Amino acid sequence: MKKLRSVVTCMGVFFFCVCGAFAQSVPAVEQWGRFEFALRGTPIGNPFNDVALEATFTNGGEEVTVNGFYDGGGVYRVRFMPEKKGTWSYATVSNMPALDGKTGTFECVNPGTENHGPVKTRGMFDFAYADGKPYYPFGTTVYAFVHQGDSLENTTLETLRNAPFNKVRICVFPKNYEFNDREPEYYPFKRVEGVELIGSNQTAVWDFTKFDPEFFQHLEKRIDRLNDLGIECDLILFHPYDNGRWGFDRMTRPNDIRYLEYVTARLASFRNIWWSMANEFDYMKEKTLADWQAFLETVAANDPYGHLRSVHNGDTLFNHHNPLVTHASVQSASMLSDFGRGSLMRDAYLKPVMFDEVCYEGNIESRWGNLSAREMTHRFWQGALVGAYVTHGETYLDPDDIIWWAAGGVLRGQSPARIGFLRRLIEQETGALHLIDNWRTLNASMGESGQIVIYFGKETPTEWAVTFPAKIRWADGTQFNVEVIDTWEMTRTPVPGTFTAQTIARYVIGEADGKKIKLPGKPYQALLITRVP
Amino acid sequence: MKKLRSVVTCMGVFFFCVCGAFAQSVPAVEQWGRFEFALRGTPIGNPFNDVALEATFTNGGEEVTVNGFYDGGGVYRVRFMPEKKGTWSYATVSNMPALDGKTGTFECVNPGTENHGPVKTRGMFDFAYADGKPYYPFGTTVYAFVHQGDSLENTTLETLRNAPFNKVRICVFPKNYEFNDREPEYYPFKRVEGVELIGSNQTAVWDFTKFDPEFFQHLEKRIDRLNDLGIECDLILFHPYDNGRWGFDRMTRPNDIRYLEYVTARLASFRNIWWSMANEFDYMKEKTLADWQAFLETVAANDPYGHLRSVHNGDTLFNHHNPLVTHASVQSASMLSDFGRGSLMRDAYLKPVMFDEVCYEGNIESRWGNLSAREMTHRFWQGALVGAYVTHGETYLDPDDIIWWAAGGVLRGQSPARIGFLRRLIEQETGALHLIDNWRTLNASMGESGQIVIYFGKETPTEWAVTFPAKIRWADGTQFNVEVIDTWEMTRTPVPGTFTAQTIARYVIGEADGKKIKLPGKPYQALLITRVP
Repeated sequence: MKKLRSVVTCMGVFFFCVCGAFAQSVPAVEQWGRFEFALRGTPIGNPFNDVALEATFTNGGEEVTVNGFYDGGGVYRVRFMPEKKGTWSYATVSNMPALDGKTGTFECVNPGTENHGPVKTRGMFDFAYADGKPYYPFGTTVYAFVHQGDSLENTTLETLRNAPFNKVRICVFPKNYEFNDREPEYYPFKRVEGVELIGSNQTAVWDFTKFDPEFFQHLEKRIDRLNDLGIECDLILFHPYDNGRWGFDRMTRPNDIRYLEYVTARLASFRNIWWSMANEFDYMKEKTLADWQAFLETVAANDPYGHLRSVHNGDTLFNHHNPLVTHASVQSASMLSDFGRGSLMRDAYLKPVMFDEVCYEGNIESRWGNLSAREMTHRFWQGALVGAYVTHGETYLDPDDIIWWAAGGVLRGQSPARIGFLRRLIEQETGALHLIDNWRTLNASMGESGQIVIYFGKETPTEWAVTFPAKIRWADGTQFNVEVIDTWEMTRTPVPGTFTAQTIARYVIGEADGKKIKLPGKPYQALLITRVP
Repeated sequence: MKKLRSVVTCMGVFFFCVCGAFAQSVPAVEQWGRFEFALRGTPIGNPFNDVALEATFTNGGEEVTVNGFYDGGGVYRVRFMPEKKGTWSYATVSNMPALDGKTGTFECVNPGTENHGPVKTRGMFDFAYADGKPYYPFGTTVYAFVHQGDSLENTTLETLRNAPFNKVRICVFPKNYEFNDREPEYYPFKRVEGVELIGSNQTAVWDFTKFDPEFFQHLEKRIDRLNDLGIECDLILFHPYDNGRWGFDRMTRPNDIRYLEYVTARLASFRNIWWSMANEFDYMKEKTLADWQAFLETVAANDPYGHLRSVHNGDTLFNHHNPLVTHASVQSASMLSDFGRGSLMRDAYLKPVMFDEVCYEGNIESRWGNLSAREMTHRFWQGALVGAYVTHGETYLDPDDIIWWAAGGVLRGQSPARIGFLRRLIEQETGALHLIDNWRTLNASMGESGQIVIYFGKETPTEWAVTFPAKIRWADGTQFNVEVIDTWEMTRTPVPGTFTAQTIARYVIGEADGKKIKLPGKPYQALLITRVP
């Protein structure tokens, strides 16, 4: 082991000969794809705990060390996501001789056309894939997606294939909550041998130091399928909806950390993974702020690729200024209910802001679960208008309690189609929006394209006198066209003619001939305003 | 000098004999009062620049080193604010022999009844004087207060004596802006000898390395008078409203730093000083974020007492998470215009939030200067309701352009009386408020007293069905009384009878017998709800 360690540290100058059981050919792996190899070793003690395995990958000056993990049945695995093309070599280090000193090589080749790499932050407020393609999150929520069994899970995937969402929030741990009392098929931990379950409290049944690889293999299959659909997986690592039933929400700190190390060893190489440290961290009364800091540090230390990290709140915001937090993941029932409120999160955090819970479209009695489709759509527009990103969820009652927000299945609501309409507008035309003058004009934004979007929300004007905040800096004489967008009907209606900008007051640019825009006097109208080139 | 330094470093074990010109008696200084001594030395070179003078004060284990400063006419001064009672000894160190090695002693005695010490932050969101007495800022704004000449400045002080304000925002530098084109009587810098002023741009006239002590002596007199009136001085160190006329807004970094060192040497010992690094930092296009960081660091390093520090914005918020920023000083035209918006700043910054510009009560044409008195009062209530602190300003047209917001003089508006009414309610009864359920109920807050305040703003209900967020955690059967407050008329009307709390839904506590509160159907009403002991 000592010998190998010295090789690892000055690896740059060594050529790694392909040797051993995994060296029959040089595999090719896409950039941002996943390279994986397996090693066999007789398990000793608690193989999750007692066996250390890591591998260092090198490619020219690049060197990345990743943790391996025990996958059951005497198999240990190492996974790696190459971020750089070319020849990668690796060597393992382990305290188990059978796993130690294994070396190999693979070729990292061009990514496929649908592979743009993992999502990173872009600028101060936005996101892009690693290849530079902008990514605008339009997410949905299926908390207990992976705990529903193949039939329903496949239905969910089929729904997602045809839905407008490119991100989904799912939990590792199963959910014990209203409408969610089914036992899952898989559990993340092994049962303690010889302990009988008495009553519904299962906490004594689980050995939190021994993982069940089958659970994780199943989870991984689902994450890969999401990736096939172009969907980012915002993986929720802890949540309070266990409510003590299994006890996964109230493990000790050492068990929490071991769990995070295991999850990151297995999943950090998945291109579409994001780490959501929690849903509603503040409702997990057993955890302290020091715990969340330790969790963030553990995940950051064990994810060499720097996948996105966030901490979602119940009613008390996490301190999103924490440098380990890549973007603010905010639950709020009220921040997107009117103009410009959401912008304040951006202004304060100077990071991308995602409204990962804004209540759900549905008809359940709980106050967070009965938005109309119009209100959900409105919140997406309010979010988009301030350059924040909104996550959908749906809670329509179902005779079998198959509710999208937790169980998946099919979507019944009317907001997804409208969300898709908005997504196309942002992705294909305007790019990310930001308020032009957040000091006072809270319904007018400019896109990365230079186009202006004005949104009237629940107001029902029949005409709009052209007035832009002077900060658009359009010279007098600038010509522009206007389209009226009905965000609910998903129609776009060009207004005939062109218009001419002219400064009409200290802070205001208007129309040179005083032309006005006719509007239908209905709610949820918007304008898309484009300069004539 | 070397010898003295060694004395200074092990000062704790020495007894300082009272010696030299300042040792005729042992002066007594109140705790948080100001101890000052003067030394004479023949000025050499640029005495502001070339003479170094500091003094170390010790009292038991306490040791505080402060900078001295040149006050003109061959006089150098050292000022010190003792924070601990007992006997303080001091010794100077200087590169000018006449100023070096001077020692002395004074006695720090009990503070007077009106002296509660400097204001510090209290808990996460509030303020208190050093003696623990809570301080609730109710400020106003008179930017160019000290540049108006004795007559008007005395009028301003007389107005403040009778006004409800306990903080005032004033600028060190004079103001060149609309309604503000008068030349001040004093300037902070000396004129360059032999340079003639040509045209209105005076930048070449000033020697930014030489201060005019008369200017600062005048400023200090004003700050002390404010202190006599129980008013904190939020001193604005830089601002953009020079617009290049004198050039005080666009000095070089070394001159800026020297200026801050001089100001802090003179003023850090003033009990009621706060450091507002800027008004509208983002409108000072010549300064970078690195400049602001350097300014914060300079002020913090040269103020051993840790007076409050903030950076006020134009339309882009400063990063108030900066650890050198003690509280968020926010300008916003819209954050207090409706319910709960202001709370988001608190939620995001986890620091006290002061809305130091919310537009002004007045009638000038500029969009920031024509709030009605009702709207100004409303914004104070919106701020108080979310546990944030609001600053007043007034901009009524005047034939001589004597407008309160910049020049002082007299107050003409109708909001100050209402602000005083609110201040008394907060100070004498409720204490600081915070939203009970900021997830969704944005008009109901609980005070430190445990009382509940519900504010209806511009709504005009004729009755209120008792509904509290369940988070008040009042047991069923809790009895309470209700007062209707007319925030505009400044009346408080007890509602006859007592009421009884009862949980009526998952998130809602109501009234056991379904009693409702009658309201007058007018805007700007509030309720004060108090448990029966």
